[in-house]
Amino acid sequence: MQIVGVAGADKVQAANLSPDGERLTVVAGLREFWADPEGWLARPSVGETLPAGQARLVPPVLPEAQMLCVGLNYLDHAAEGSYRDQELPEHPTLFARWTRSLTVGGAAIPVPATEDGLDWEGEIVAWVGRTLVDADPSEALDAVVGYSTFNDVTARRAQKLTSQWILGKNADRSGPLGPMVPAGEVGDLRDGLRVHTRVNGTTVQDASTSQMIHRVGETLAHISRTLTLHPGDLLATGTPSGVGYARTPPWLLRPGDVVEVEVERLGILRNTIVGAEHRRNSSLGDLLDEDAGVPAVFSRQE
Amino acid sequence: MQIVGVAGADKVQAANLSPDGERLTVVAGLREFWADPEGWLARPSVGETLPAGQARLVPPVLPEAQMLCVGLNYLDHAAEGSYRDQELPEHPTLFARWTRSLTVGGAAIPVPATEDGLDWEGEIVAWVGRTLVDADPSEALDAVVGYSTFNDVTARRAQKLTSQWILGKNADRSGPLGPMVPAGEVGDLRDGLRVHTRVNGTTVQDASTSQMIHRVGETLAHISRTLTLHPGDLLATGTPSGVGYARTPPWLLRPGDVVEVEVERLGILRNTIVGAEHRRNSSLGDLLDEDAGVPAVFSRQE
Repeated sequence: MQIVGVAGADKVQAANLSPDGERLTVVAGLREFWADPEGWLARPSVGETLPAGQARLVPPVLPEAQMLCVGLNYLDHAAEGSYRDQELPEHPTLFARWTRSLTVGGAAIPVPATEDGLDWEGEIVAWVGRTLVDADPSEALDAVVGYSTFNDVTARRAQKLTSQWILGKNADRSGPLGPMVPAGEVGDLRDGLRVHTRVNGTTVQDASTSQMIHRVGETLAHISRTLTLHPGDLLATGTPSGVGYARTPPWLLRPGDVVEVEVERLGILRNTIVGAEHRRNSSLGDLLDEDAGVPAVFSRQE
Repeated sequence: MQIVGVAGADKVQAANLSPDGERLTVVAGLREFWADPEGWLARPSVGETLPAGQARLVPPVLPEAQMLCVGLNYLDHAAEGSYRDQELPEHPTLFARWTRSLTVGGAAIPVPATEDGLDWEGEIVAWVGRTLVDADPSEALDAVVGYSTFNDVTARRAQKLTSQWILGKNADRSGPLGPMVPAGEVGDLRDGLRVHTRVNGTTVQDASTSQMIHRVGETLAHISRTLTLHPGDLLATGTPSGVGYARTPPWLLRPGDVVEVEVERLGILRNTIVGAEHRRNSSLGDLLDEDAGVPAVFSRQE
């Protein structure tokens, strides 16, 4: 099962994308879905079925969803970048994305005119399915309703201008997010899922989630001691080593490049990079880069 | 004119609160309002009028609004805190709030169980009224449709756990936000508006916006080079000196305290602090602390 968002005339619906990526079956209105995600996932999807090619896919996120992202969460990545001389933090380093920055596989991601290029960060997102306040780690892990492939595409120049990263982490359409796969089909990230990033077919990141420092349950529990987590909130779990800016020489994504993140059991997310002149096409209707010949949806078998 | 949000059964409306805070006149549905904020502000409000006491007030923010906040934006505040030994950044230090953290004057703000208390940060929010992409500073300043009093209430322990601040900047109901006053009634912040914070009646911050380092137009222009700003997005412009954690001994807000931020031309925002046991009452219906005898709305004359 893989849950996607389908944009209609006046609202977004949650739908189940078939394993071959060809058909969608509507599950519920997106807000209805997030009112009881475990319930909807447990029932068979009985809504309208339509060809995926006719649908405008969007991430199945509520507009107000809080997306917390863990930085420096793989030992080898923490050792490669500008924080390499610092001790590993005892607590997860958390930064923020707004849902405005999210998009889907197939979308074209523009390089802002102020950047030399964009950097890739292949990773996994965990979706919160229950309200969490002062949760303990096992309660928090039980509340994870699904996982998605994610590319935390980063505008490094903007990220590094000051001590705080968020400007460079929220560039237009910089957060492509795959369908949500129910947690029961994924298992425990501690068992090790392979995370694999390719640029124009060349492998640039290849790691196992068994190398994660701060675990999903612990991190969500930690967050819930300060702010209440709600169904539909997201946790991006951090990227392994192999990002572009830390290479010698640096390697950044330029217009025309194709970046893919593949996560075992979660599927492949493929996006093209375009020039700054495409920044203005940021409405939902312009999200998908049909001209680039990239399919609007991705399938798990792709 | 002062624009507030009024929560109804199924949607939020933008309404004009009378100068005495007694009556509300509905302007438009909130999403309609943000589709053309300048147009709605230019026309007389002709919607339903109702007593303010019967309304459930909420911030007039869209759920997906991006709230960017400038840290260290007054010379004397940059000099008092943990960044005092560093050079002033050439660029504004930007951190993020999600709209989930926002509330209104009169709301009770809970201290998370992991904090010794909460810190005050009186400041001004600028509301973006037009889409901004690669804007220049004068275009960006022209796009500001209004301003509000804001208290960037901070969970210092969570803020300082790692290099990134956002966990401590998004505690439950930690961002009380006053009504939006149209930009035309406020004038230029460079001319100097007085920002005044009081705790239980004692003045703790008293400064003029003429001391700001990074100006609103310049900061919005800077942001728009990386991410598109949309109508309804917010910029919190930073707090002057006098915050609690930098004092000797430190002074933090504890349950029972009353904190007020007063900004010339924008009005007073008054909130009470409550214990961690009130964190669970985070639904909209529980936002207002009627038991504390604090009015649910605040008036500019208060």
